[in-house]
Amino acid sequence: MSANSKSPTGNFFEDFYIGQVFHHATPRTISDGDSALYIALTGARQVLSSADTVAHAMGYQRRVVDDLLAFHIALGKTVPDISINAVANLGYAQVKFLRPIYAGDTLSSKSTVIGLKQNSDGKSGVVYVQCEASNQNHQIVMTWIRWVMVRKQDTAAPAPTTVIPELDKVVDVNHLSVSADISYQLFDTQITGSDYVWDDYEVNEQIHHPSGMTIDESDHTLATKLYQNPARLHFDATQSTYQKRLIFGGHIISVCRALSYEGLENALTIAAINGGSHCNPTFAGDTIYAHSQVLDKWQLPNREDVGALRLRLLGVKNERLQDASMAMREENGKRIYQPNVVLDLDYTVLMPRKTK
Amino acid sequence: MSANSKSPTGNFFEDFYIGQVFHHATPRTISDGDSALYIALTGARQVLSSADTVAHAMGYQRRVVDDLLAFHIALGKTVPDISINAVANLGYAQVKFLRPIYAGDTLSSKSTVIGLKQNSDGKSGVVYVQCEASNQNHQIVMTWIRWVMVRKQDTAAPAPTTVIPELDKVVDVNHLSVSADISYQLFDTQITGSDYVWDDYEVNEQIHHPSGMTIDESDHTLATKLYQNPARLHFDATQSTYQKRLIFGGHIISVCRALSYEGLENALTIAAINGGSHCNPTFAGDTIYAHSQVLDKWQLPNREDVGALRLRLLGVKNERLQDASMAMREENGKRIYQPNVVLDLDYTVLMPRKTK
Amino acid sequence: MSANSKSPTGNFFEDFYIGQVFHHATPRTISDGDSALYIALTGARQVLSSADTVAHAMGYQRRVVDDLLAFHIALGKTVPDISINAVANLGYAQVKFLRPIYAGDTLSSKSTVIGLKQNSDGKSGVVYVQCEASNQNHQIVMTWIRWVMVRKQDTAAPAPTTVIPELDKVVDVNHLSVSADISYQLFDTQITGSDYVWDDYEVNEQIHHPSGMTIDESDHTLATKLYQNPARLHFDATQSTYQKRLIFGGHIISVCRALSYEGLENALTIAAINGGSHCNPTFAGDTIYAHSQVLDKWQLPNREDVGALRLRLLGVKNERLQDASMAMREENGKRIYQPNVVLDLDYTVLMPRKTK
Repeated sequence: MSANSKSPTGNFFEDFYIGQVFHHATPRTISDGDSALYIALTGARQVLSSADTVAHAMGYQRRVVDDLLAFHIALGKTVPDISINAVANLGYAQVKFLRPIYAGDTLSSKSTVIGLKQNSDGKSGVVYVQCEASNQNHQIVMTWIRWVMVRKQDTAAPAPTTVIPELDKVVDVNHLSVSADISYQLFDTQITGSDYVWDDYEVNEQIHHPSGMTIDESDHTLATKLYQNPARLHFDATQSTYQKRLIFGGHIISVCRALSYEGLENALTIAAINGGSHCNPTFAGDTIYAHSQVLDKWQLPNREDVGALRLRLLGVKNERLQDASMAMREENGKRIYQPNVVLDLDYTVLMPRKTK
Repeated sequence: MSANSKSPTGNFFEDFYIGQVFHHATPRTISDGDSALYIALTGARQVLSSADTVAHAMGYQRRVVDDLLAFHIALGKTVPDISINAVANLGYAQVKFLRPIYAGDTLSSKSTVIGLKQNSDGKSGVVYVQCEASNQNHQIVMTWIRWVMVRKQDTAAPAPTTVIPELDKVVDVNHLSVSADISYQLFDTQITGSDYVWDDYEVNEQIHHPSGMTIDESDHTLATKLYQNPARLHFDATQSTYQKRLIFGGHIISVCRALSYEGLENALTIAAINGGSHCNPTFAGDTIYAHSQVLDKWQLPNREDVGALRLRLLGVKNERLQDASMAMREENGKRIYQPNVVLDLDYTVLMPRKTK
Repeated sequence: MSANSKSPTGNFFEDFYIGQVFHHATPRTISDGDSALYIALTGARQVLSSADTVAHAMGYQRRVVDDLLAFHIALGKTVPDISINAVANLGYAQVKFLRPIYAGDTLSSKSTVIGLKQNSDGKSGVVYVQCEASNQNHQIVMTWIRWVMVRKQDTAAPAPTTVIPELDKVVDVNHLSVSADISYQLFDTQITGSDYVWDDYEVNEQIHHPSGMTIDESDHTLATKLYQNPARLHFDATQSTYQKRLIFGGHIISVCRALSYEGLENALTIAAINGGSHCNPTFAGDTIYAHSQVLDKWQLPNREDVGALRLRLLGVKNERLQDASMAMREENGKRIYQPNVVLDLDYTVLMPRKTK
């Protein structure tokens, strides 16, 4: 008997090398069923994923698959090759949403190793991957960089040459994808119930989103299974250092984005995620609140109908934040977060501008 | 910093005036995914929402979106403008289901204020709204009246002139919508497994539906998020006077309707909801049972293939009701419900008649 | 008042007779929404139900409805007539998957009584039914045999003549349905991430699937409602001898099949279920692990591109199994399972063969 011979073990730190390419397994067709579940799991009300009529009037074929739903599925595909043996998901950067995704599209993901750094204890190391997701027409719909700390299986394996990629802190406004086919010109804010458009938001302005959401265990396990993300610590308490299942960080991002609808109703699509951290763990029973801060606002090249807002989305658990400045302090160049802060996300949205 | 400036506060009692019209935000395209989730959340087996073949044979384009799924979505859209500051949802009346809704239809809701009455303590008041939901072709698919008790923000604001609309206790049989395109003539009761049709039910007859259903927390939070209904006391325990999340009343209606399938298999569609009350709160862990009583039966104008039954649907928790008469007693003209009665709904269904 | 007169009581043991045919109620159209939920509930990653592109390239119209999703729905339809008064679900055999099912297909189920044996205490008996599910074109898509122990209502009713059908222990390889329209020839194993194909598996080989999955109460209640299976002990704790809701056995099969993806990535479809038992009950909070053992491997008539593997799928709770041989022992010809073994399923899958 040769038990486990066919059981996949995933890759350990010593298995990665610079330039290594992974065509990740099991493409996924996204359907209206996935979108319905996404709404049920997160409470998302973003209009472009809610109403065919509105999306179509702007030039989309029909309503689009929520940006984060597609991102979670595309990223989930990379887990078996990249992070099934991860000790920690350290971060992502330069997430770019390049093309609308519609129900019926089939996504595949691919990763290239662009950075490696063994930890000083020789037991693990950081792997940086440049990832992309493509649709059935081989069009790239999304790209991102992610880095994870992965265990070594064979601690005697030699350390690779350290390569740390240079990461842009922010996706440049000139690299945001804004299709010429999509018009924000005639967007009727009555549709979302808020008059506030790009022109109305000011840098440093904060929005305390009024609603909260208690997370049930099944919310995140259904979500993670829907995304076909097999990271084990979300499904099996014994795999988590907390002795209970850890809420999938992507679910927290989605819940905070959904909560942020109240105050950012016209933040129609996510153009980029510049970076983010899951500052503290979330568990079933925690109630999540969201706060936003405008970090920057940019005009877009050759567009008068739409502008970009760079936002900070803070997620906190069980008690609200009085002010975004209280989320963390810097000590010796290190960010120390308040224990109730669970998410600090830096992202860029597109928002209609005032019609002249 | 101007925190909360863009955070919507909703309307308070003093913000409403007679004749005021709300075009509610964020239209919603309903999909087969919503219908699948509705079945998973409620256990609904009503055949017209279950089988394309059966619906098509009767003259429908295909299976229809469950009446209550559509109602919950349409009503959910009114919450941010009408009842986000509600102290209590007092009732609804004259709910009329006017047209079948199919997957792919996009619903929008609109409300008009038709009644106002400030409470004697000056801290809140009752708002009556006449509501309608339309599809993407601007056809009205559903109308209803609802009244809620809403807080005042500025208790010094003057009381409006009291206007209390006259409400029909029952939707008249002549106002029920029964499409000429739909034939019940050839409906084969083998499809639902019950021979009982309109002719077989007698006024005052009771049906004790045999199955029960324990409600899990996630059942109603998934449902309420699916309906994009942001009423906060269902999501955030701190917003509920019970210090735990209150089960969304609409979910109880849906569960009771689903349980009532066993004994009312041929109650194919809901034509109207005449009125209803959520008599006591339901919480996660409660097991719901349903009892029906035939309140009235009517022939329909110019139709020999289908008749209307007016039904009382009682929902009880954790122990069954011996008899509908034990659900409540009247004291000084006020209804006092048994503590285990959670729903008393008065509604009208369409049912095939015996073929001659 | 004639309470309960219309409330269906289902059939008791004395109501069944050999040759009796049931056309079960309420056909069901399966949609992409059902498939999305199935993925969310089970974590299934089997590629033919995940990606249109892959399924289409092999000759399918598009991705297929998961075999087990269709089976659970088809079987659920038989419950109100056959097993609503069951004391125990004893087994199934000769489950054959005959045709692919696509979103949009409408399934109906039919059962014929082929065996009866009253128990010696005269209070219950075993009913054997031969079942089939058909699509909207009256094509049989699935057949199976099932036997259940059903209570007698009238213990004075005479015992029927005992008829025990002969059951094949294994569906013969020549009876497996492998469509000539479907080609495994060009199947690219990069799609599933595993190189292992039919040729690589050896009889008696074991695979210890690495992931586990904790079952939440809502996982199985959502699943069972989705399948419109009204068996009461899953919904109402008072109906279960355990005083808590019993996890639906079909959900355990699905979870184990999903977990078995890691190590059996190219087990593309289920051709047959030869038999199976739910050895011990599962409850919410249990964590399920899966182990597989290759029982047999067969070439298929006239096919060089695809072969059949007969597999044993063991599901265990809360602790892993060291070896399949430890799952049970035989005592006096009776199988005594370890208390943590919850599933012992014998089934046959189709897997691509090495291209020459």
